Amino acid sequence: MSGSTVADYLLDRLAELGAEHVFGVPGDFTLGFLDHVDAHPALEWVGTANELGAGYAADGYARLRGVGVVSLTFGVGELSAINAIAGAYAEHVPLLMLVGAPATATQAAGRPTHHSMGDGDFGHTLRMATEVTVAQAALTAENATAEIDRVLAAIVARGQPGYLSLPIDVAEAPAPRPAAPLALQPHPSDPDALARFTAAARALLDGAPAPVVLADILVQRAGAEAQLHALLEHGGLRYSSLLWGRRVIDESGAGFLGTYVGAASEPEVREAVEGAPRLITAGVQFTDLISGFFSQHLDEARRIDLLPHRAVVAGTTFEHVELGDALEALARVIPAADAPPTPTAAAPTPAPTTDGPLTQAALWDAVGGALRPGDLVVADQGTSFYGLGPHHLPHDALFFGQPLWASIGYTLPALLGAALAAPQRRPVLLIGDGAAQLTIQELGTLLRRRIPALVVVVNNDGYTVERAIHGRDKAYNDIAPWRWTQLPAALGAAPGQAIAVRAQTTTELVAALEQADAHRDRLTLVEAVTDPFDVPPLLVAVARAAAAANARR
Amino acid sequence: MSGSTVADYLLDRLAELGAEHVFGVPGDFTLGFLDHVDAHPALEWVGTANELGAGYAADGYARLRGVGVVSLTFGVGELSAINAIAGAYAEHVPLLMLVGAPATATQAAGRPTHHSMGDGDFGHTLRMATEVTVAQAALTAENATAEIDRVLAAIVARGQPGYLSLPIDVAEAPAPRPAAPLALQPHPSDPDALARFTAAARALLDGAPAPVVLADILVQRAGAEAQLHALLEHGGLRYSSLLWGRRVIDESGAGFLGTYVGAASEPEVREAVEGAPRLITAGVQFTDLISGFFSQHLDEARRIDLLPHRAVVAGTTFEHVELGDALEALARVIPAADAPPTPTAAAPTPAPTTDGPLTQAALWDAVGGALRPGDLVVADQGTSFYGLGPHHLPHDALFFGQPLWASIGYTLPALLGAALAAPQRRPVLLIGDGAAQLTIQELGTLLRRRIPALVVVVNNDGYTVERAIHGRDKAYNDIAPWRWTQLPAALGAAPGQAIAVRAQTTTELVAALEQADAHRDRLTLVEAVTDPFDVPPLLVAVARAAAAANARR
Repeated sequence: MSGSTVADYLLDRLAELGAEHVFGVPGDFTLGFLDHVDAHPALEWVGTANELGAGYAADGYARLRGVGVVSLTFGVGELSAINAIAGAYAEHVPLLMLVGAPATATQAAGRPTHHSMGDGDFGHTLRMATEVTVAQAALTAENATAEIDRVLAAIVARGQPGYLSLPIDVAEAPAPRPAAPLALQPHPSDPDALARFTAAARALLDGAPAPVVLADILVQRAGAEAQLHALLEHGGLRYSSLLWGRRVIDESGAGFLGTYVGAASEPEVREAVEGAPRLITAGVQFTDLISGFFSQHLDEARRIDLLPHRAVVAGTTFEHVELGDALEALARVIPAADAPPTPTAAAPTPAPTTDGPLTQAALWDAVGGALRPGDLVVADQGTSFYGLGPHHLPHDALFFGQPLWASIGYTLPALLGAALAAPQRRPVLLIGDGAAQLTIQELGTLLRRRIPALVVVVNNDGYTVERAIHGRDKAYNDIAPWRWTQLPAALGAAPGQAIAVRAQTTTELVAALEQADAHRDRLTLVEAVTDPFDVPPLLVAVARAAAAANARR
Repeated sequence: MSGSTVADYLLDRLAELGAEHVFGVPGDFTLGFLDHVDAHPALEWVGTANELGAGYAADGYARLRGVGVVSLTFGVGELSAINAIAGAYAEHVPLLMLVGAPATATQAAGRPTHHSMGDGDFGHTLRMATEVTVAQAALTAENATAEIDRVLAAIVARGQPGYLSLPIDVAEAPAPRPAAPLALQPHPSDPDALARFTAAARALLDGAPAPVVLADILVQRAGAEAQLHALLEHGGLRYSSLLWGRRVIDESGAGFLGTYVGAASEPEVREAVEGAPRLITAGVQFTDLISGFFSQHLDEARRIDLLPHRAVVAGTTFEHVELGDALEALARVIPAADAPPTPTAAAPTPAPTTDGPLTQAALWDAVGGALRPGDLVVADQGTSFYGLGPHHLPHDALFFGQPLWASIGYTLPALLGAALAAPQRRPVLLIGDGAAQLTIQELGTLLRRRIPALVVVVNNDGYTVERAIHGRDKAYNDIAPWRWTQLPAALGAAPGQAIAVRAQTTTELVAALEQADAHRDRLTLVEAVTDPFDVPPLLVAVARAAAAANARR
């Protein structure tokens, strides 16, 4: 092989961070770089049908792997995907947006080049990216290795996206292979602050009943899941999560109280969390859709809040206390339990099998009952996300959605990326018809990559989540009537590769889910038909809160 | 009805500018506004499957109507469509990006609200939009009518996109109906500059043979098509256009020389344009893909250049000379012709019907031969755009593509918008398989809107335009193998509404095009199968130039 290049340096670094796949759509400013991906022993190219799909897939991948990479062409490609980057920024997902740019000389000439805005200014998109990334660099042959390291280190440190512009000539410029591991800035706790935090926590907890723990997504983002699990087991504590961070706790465990959604919670869950004599929140960021529009009522005086880099005890803040360290400290403060807690939360029992039309309630009962330990479950931000909310997930199931950025259609490509990141898990996608129409082309990519997903499309004739908020009968909440079961074949399923079933009753749905379970080597698409105005109870509560919040002037 | 609101004021203004349709995807921050669209007598809502499709559709609409409107929700919706806005910015298309935003009080509270980045800053996306729009406003109840007028006037004056953020409460705030027409800033020519320009043009043209005219897209953008046509007819002049602005001249006219593509032109066209004793360029902006990568050779000393707001005679610039005025002045300088010019350019004769595998050459001969006067023809920026390049369009055919921004997949939604803007024309879409995969969901919208388009999908197993540039056999230029003829039914075609045909030979293709012609009330999808490595000759020439330009360091 010829000498090592900037492209190779970058790819080595990405492999070092744990990436094994690069997502994207090729363009003439990226084709040379893709030859280097092709040649790299540790990396594989995953071409998607469009750029937004690539961005979402890289996001789903990063949520499991800790890093995702999307390679796009200048202008058209990057802007088509920038909504995905913004979502990763909002939801704390570490992602590299790598943009193949025109040659340095082309940019310097300033002429109206395709994929540019024709005004000689090649900096528009990098400036736009500063709003949704934590570090950016326009690479040159001279600065490339240092700037690559700076941007990648920032992505890791902040757990949010970064942006690199790689002109085609710079990709081919000579560069060494990395000589040493990427220098990451550790975030150590301040020992003094940690000691003061520990003392304050001890004072609050001593003599009180065992605390309840409310954990959420930032525990995972901060890499503190092991410490959380150790604390819960050590103390035999009861716990809950919000809908965003279901993955950080075990919903099959004895201590699980159910999911907390502020005023939209089930009454027993609300009472257990809000009425707890002592409450530890770990990695919680309350957003409107997971808190019943900020309807949480958690008494500060009884509360310890652990955030990624600081902790708060009954209102007193301790900066530079890392989340993992704080959890470990609490495990030393809280007495060891003799036994796990008595189970208090019973998962809803599956609905009886009936032959009446399928309802949302029966749909989610059946889907919840069909999930298995270890499943990778991704639910779009509509009836799917809320429908599954009250159902307790099996042990080691990994669930995610996108409740803050809440970009409908996100989950179909995100499942693609997540499935490639965790091929040992069964990928399960729960999505509405309106949402699936946004990104349907990546169903073809799932088939092309032979990913044996279970895809449940809720066909309820439009944007039911919007109908619940406003415009119940309005035409603007209608969508084109697709024939969902024809899509796997149309989008390229090989003979025998896919199963597609339309379920209009609970019996049909249960049979379809059993068929999927019996053919785990195939992709199964289940079209679950429900009434346009039928919504899961949790969504009713949240939509009511949304309407109230929007109406406030 | 209750009192008039800001939403009504805005809609009245949009109707005044010629909009009859509003494109978009609903979101909970836009639903209230959509009730006003629903109620407005002059405007109709067009829901698309996703936001990028809405943006492209509004762009296609604006290219025919002079204004397009896309209504999207905050954050997720607007960023999903911003590539379309950037394309309109680059290609001088007047478009309003209207973003439904969280209520003023919600923004002021700064809490982590869905579709925001969770950091309390609701200004990220407006700042991003400043890079791709010519005017922006965050509307308030107090500033709304003035700011709406300012932004709309800028869109019209600049012929590029503008951005309005409309919080849900502001949409419902009381506002008068518009009392007077929107005040537009006219761009009058400076009479003195115009006189000096005219004298200089006369000095250059007097005594010389009749000039050749090279006209392009900015003639249309400047609203000077009538003046161009009058000049050509008055002087009996020979003329050419570039591929961007084919619509501004009549390719069926006697004076048409063929299309000019710099060094990639057919030799006779190149000689006629570059060797002309006098050349008038009107509304020409040379970009790489339409000029054979800036390979035009046009002698300044023999040239008059007319741009939207200035003119240049043999290198001397006259500012504040409007394009339409300059064309009218030249019609007074150039003597009237006794007769139209003798035709010099012969359109390629259709290829003989054969039963061998379909070639790109035969494909475009057949498609070119099947076009009819008045057709609306939209070609994606791959083999379609270049394949049809040498074929002379019938009288009054209206052709467009997107050769500067060059975002593949653009044309499918753009055709939707253009077809709604000009329902009397037959919509014809020419698109490659790779491109069609990016935006395929809007095929469902074409069906839902019952638009009887002829859609020719070139199935050549991937990104052939990229193969022509780099990575001929590389897997990154492959795509998922779809079953194209199954798509209309899967995406909702009613029984009898659509025809879908796969053509692998010229005979089959010609028959399919004839069938489409005989069933103009239906949507016909023709899957034209060609070899992955077969490219139209014009694309070979352009790709060679692209590779050479990219290789220059």
